Amino acid sequence: MKRIALGVQYDGAAFNGWQSQPHGNTVQDVLERALAEFAQTPVHIVVAGRTDAGVHGIGQVVHFDTELDRADVSWVRGPNAFLPKTIAVQWAKPMPNEFHARFSAFERTYYYVLYVNPVRSPMLATRAGWVHTPLDVDAMRAGAACLLGEHDFSSLRSSQCQSKTPIKHLYQIDVIQQGDFIHFRFRANAFLHHMVRNLMGCLVSIGRGNHPPEWMAEVLAARSRECAAPTFMPDGLYLAQVGYPEQFDVPAPQIGSVPWNTVWTEQA
Amino acid sequence: MKRIALGVQYDGAAFNGWQSQPHGNTVQDVLERALAEFAQTPVHIVVAGRTDAGVHGIGQVVHFDTELDRADVSWVRGPNAFLPKTIAVQWAKPMPNEFHARFSAFERTYYYVLYVNPVRSPMLATRAGWVHTPLDVDAMRAGAACLLGEHDFSSLRSSQCQSKTPIKHLYQIDVIQQGDFIHFRFRANAFLHHMVRNLMGCLVSIGRGNHPPEWMAEVLAARSRECAAPTFMPDGLYLAQVGYPEQFDVPAPQIGSVPWNTVWTEQA
Repeated sequence: MKRIALGVQYDGAAFNGWQSQPHGNTVQDVLERALAEFAQTPVHIVVAGRTDAGVHGIGQVVHFDTELDRADVSWVRGPNAFLPKTIAVQWAKPMPNEFHARFSAFERTYYYVLYVNPVRSPMLATRAGWVHTPLDVDAMRAGAACLLGEHDFSSLRSSQCQSKTPIKHLYQIDVIQQGDFIHFRFRANAFLHHMVRNLMGCLVSIGRGNHPPEWMAEVLAARSRECAAPTFMPDGLYLAQVGYPEQFDVPAPQIGSVPWNTVWTEQA
Repeated sequence: MKRIALGVQYDGAAFNGWQSQPHGNTVQDVLERALAEFAQTPVHIVVAGRTDAGVHGIGQVVHFDTELDRADVSWVRGPNAFLPKTIAVQWAKPMPNEFHARFSAFERTYYYVLYVNPVRSPMLATRAGWVHTPLDVDAMRAGAACLLGEHDFSSLRSSQCQSKTPIKHLYQIDVIQQGDFIHFRFRANAFLHHMVRNLMGCLVSIGRGNHPPEWMAEVLAARSRECAAPTFMPDGLYLAQVGYPEQFDVPAPQIGSVPWNTVWTEQA
């Protein structure tokens, strides 16, 4: 038995989220079907981070076990021949048995792209969140600052969240304005269900002037979902990177394939 | 009767091209239907440049005549409320009767975005052309140079082309490499049907080393479609801007809504 890790990208708008459903067009269903077609035997995959419907995968990582002996590149080209345009394996790498796509990961990075313009853009539909009124970026940045560090994020947690603990450690938040776009980067040990979208809802609310930046700290301290803003649209949300211990030498995600890659790589 | 011009953007992958079809989901059909719903009367639009299926509109311009008296902004917000996510009016402006979306235009600019990577990208499907082997950008640039100026472009003309003449004037060709992308800009008084896609087919063929750069001049001189490379995929093609005489004061296209806007605006 060999353990193989795959880097996977997908357009979240084309799927009903990650997790397998009985009659669902989910990323897991479609990927497992393509792997099974290539391997000529059922393949069960374990994922680093389950994403919601509409959330895009750039640096998603999965692993599976197989008896098959194939060159690494075959695990890329083979499944890709059976996958639709909206999903593609980016790399494949044999891993030691102690590697686990989910439990070995020690951090995740999400990006959110926001388009700020009075008129919506057809080319950005499903690719970026849209706000039609100007936002106060400095206020959003000030509001975000209080989230850094280890906190009980119950206020930003969906009722369906299966995490054992609401306590997560947020290492980094960047808010970068460029033209009509505001780019957000969130890096944490792990995220709760809907955490980034709920966080975006709060930051946009602050940016609109509905609340002062200090309100973010109040929301956090309340430890109650009732206090926070509504869950923001998934359109501009990207799972960008999953961090693993160096020993596994996991390839970096192909950020270059994302149109906004220069913003994200230059400001890394 | 008043003449109104609209700036229109659309995701070409969502439509069967521009031109109205009996039972076709074309940009013209969908836009005329939305305008009629808003105006409560049939509206016939004239377009600057008919685009093929899969070709995106960024700076597309149309005009129509109406008895209705509405504020400019209503001609943006009104139709947009009836349009799908894949198309949106960007601006509206009353025009003198001598303005004609097609005949007043004296130049058109098209962009082509090419993604060069061994593995395809789901986020770029339908948004960028894809080539999986490295390309010689200098050779492509050298091949493109001979196209500048006034030429008989019969070799790059589709058999369905309705243009009165195969003679067009190409003012500008830029080839800009950035990361895994090659960006092309083509500016001419007008283009023949499939001209940019046929041109891209030739340039990619030169970039792959199938032909030397000088071959481009041979293709042009032959004045025969038989000599040129196959028509390249429409995925990365954008109608970026239509040029009108200054007197009409036509608003600039919202290039800012295109993910690659920084490449195109910084190198303008």
